Amino acid sequence: MTPAPRTLSIDLGDRRYPIHIGAGLLGDRARLEASLPAGPLLVVSNTTVAPRYLPALRTALAGRVLAECVLPDGERHKTLATLASVYDALAAARIARDGAILALGGGVVGDIAGFAAATWQRGIAVAQLPTTLLAQVDSSVGGKTAVNHPAGKNLIGAFHQPSVVVADLDTLATLPDRELRAGLAEVIKYGLVRDASFLDWLERSLERLLARDAAALAEAVERSCRIKAEIVALDERESGPRALLNLGHTFGHAIEAATGFGEWLHGEAVAMGLVLAAATSERLGWLAAADTARVRELVRRAGLPVAAPRIGVTRARELMALDKKVRAGQVRLVLLRRLGEGVVSADYDRGALESVLAAELG
Amino acid sequence: MTPAPRTLSIDLGDRRYPIHIGAGLLGDRARLEASLPAGPLLVVSNTTVAPRYLPALRTALAGRVLAECVLPDGERHKTLATLASVYDALAAARIARDGAILALGGGVVGDIAGFAAATWQRGIAVAQLPTTLLAQVDSSVGGKTAVNHPAGKNLIGAFHQPSVVVADLDTLATLPDRELRAGLAEVIKYGLVRDASFLDWLERSLERLLARDAAALAEAVERSCRIKAEIVALDERESGPRALLNLGHTFGHAIEAATGFGEWLHGEAVAMGLVLAAATSERLGWLAAADTARVRELVRRAGLPVAAPRIGVTRARELMALDKKVRAGQVRLVLLRRLGEGVVSADYDRGALESVLAAELG
Repeated sequence: MTPAPRTLSIDLGDRRYPIHIGAGLLGDRARLEASLPAGPLLVVSNTTVAPRYLPALRTALAGRVLAECVLPDGERHKTLATLASVYDALAAARIARDGAILALGGGVVGDIAGFAAATWQRGIAVAQLPTTLLAQVDSSVGGKTAVNHPAGKNLIGAFHQPSVVVADLDTLATLPDRELRAGLAEVIKYGLVRDASFLDWLERSLERLLARDAAALAEAVERSCRIKAEIVALDERESGPRALLNLGHTFGHAIEAATGFGEWLHGEAVAMGLVLAAATSERLGWLAAADTARVRELVRRAGLPVAAPRIGVTRARELMALDKKVRAGQVRLVLLRRLGEGVVSADYDRGALESVLAAELG
Repeated sequence: MTPAPRTLSIDLGDRRYPIHIGAGLLGDRARLEASLPAGPLLVVSNTTVAPRYLPALRTALAGRVLAECVLPDGERHKTLATLASVYDALAAARIARDGAILALGGGVVGDIAGFAAATWQRGIAVAQLPTTLLAQVDSSVGGKTAVNHPAGKNLIGAFHQPSVVVADLDTLATLPDRELRAGLAEVIKYGLVRDASFLDWLERSLERLLARDAAALAEAVERSCRIKAEIVALDERESGPRALLNLGHTFGHAIEAATGFGEWLHGEAVAMGLVLAAATSERLGWLAAADTARVRELVRRAGLPVAAPRIGVTRARELMALDKKVRAGQVRLVLLRRLGEGVVSADYDRGALESVLAAELG
């Protein structure tokens, strides 16, 4: 049974915005309108999502000036060139500072549309309307926006909080299995980094989640968003604890870049990164072998990769060195003190990392 | 005689940064280092400025990791494509969040380099080292960064404060006359919008300024920066009084866009915009005919244009409607209540604007 819609809120001191989670929300005019400015709107979506969900949004916003910009689908299009096409659409629709962008899609659409909103006329409003599990639990919340550079993922971006997040759980029904699983990687991340009891729940509930049980999905999205909201409220611009949310991402970004963005889904690369972070934490003596095995098994059960591509230690090291968390040449990693407790560290034994890279990516 | 270096400061509540104004500052290692982070640096400059001033900077920063990115010169290169080349240089130099950009050049270099810094890895430090009068009195101070879109000037940008502004007055000695004059347009703007006594001083000192008298230039830069610092401190993100600093700019941007960016220098278009803003204010009954004549005469004496290109009323209206100050379809204009007192208004008689457009641009 689908639970009633719930609303969380991201509290940033002087600013605050709602995250609505529930079924049928893309048709809920009142909820959408409550957080939108009065000016013209541009929906940014992609060729997969637009045919499915744009009609409902059009109906819900009938009477509003609504232009549309439909991007090609996929991480390989998260580029400056695609961003330029969004700027062109903003100019054509004459969106000024009283207008807004509605980002209707997964993480790629949200990141590009969010960055366009951050930079169009030095910042206009954006409503995030995530339609994938990954976007609902992670990328739509917290204001990180970006496009990729050939040298690395998300190297060009901005912090720009949305004015509202509307996670319509109905959209998860049509999500391809592969994307549902990719989203679960980020859900597992929250358990590993912050909440051992959530991790236990995930181990118990994984089959229900994979079977798209509505109540289980609602619970997973809500608990994930709660953890994210709590950490973002502590540290909006990632000067401290927010970096914890990058567990698995430094490894994952290297895999994505080395294989050409799009071959591995972001969530798949993150899943592999969770395993590598656990393995490194084990070599440091922080996790027991049984803990790492538990992580690997949960990732495997979720249908996510537990074997890395053999990109070579040198290339992996090189790509990890471009990571945004690098300080003074030392790669800061998010590691696990224990299951449910992440730690950001630049002060770890490099040998542990090197031996994991050699064993798993070499 | 060149006066001793002076330091103003921009005070933004929780943040503050210095503006150093004086001769020989590009060779002043201590002053530069004091506001730079420890990581690798990328100097962004252009083909005109780099041969002249980059060697001094290299010497002053000897021992630091310093990469260089030399852009083509001119407003027509203030594009996403040029920005992309700065991102490539940042990636090649492996600049991470502990690095910084040094923007060595005029307004175009400062705007592109500042925007690159605002968005590389979601924000790294930038030191603004302005080498034109226009950049020293206006664009390097206050954190506005942008590139142009074919539909309009500065449509793609961000607010990103520099960590320091170093205005080396020696660089004004080699500035082409045309660019010196273009800078005077922004200096005149400050007098018109905020300080009638500064306007009087400009009328008295114009010949000394055009002859590049060091003391007069130092005074003009310092008084301009003081006014800018005061207004930016009140309203960093231009939700209120900061819009006053756009006096002449809505007209000017339309002229720049209609003639193809680069034909008119930004300062030339702004100068013409000052005249048009005065003329509109006169039609509204706010200025006397003698006031408008005084503005026109000062602009003319500065060697700046007092006749607009005949771009046509329709095109002018269309381009002005794309301006960032538009709210609910009404172009907000900066107008003059009297000389020395600007006002931002969307509630003016449209007929006054239309008749000025017809008379001057039709």
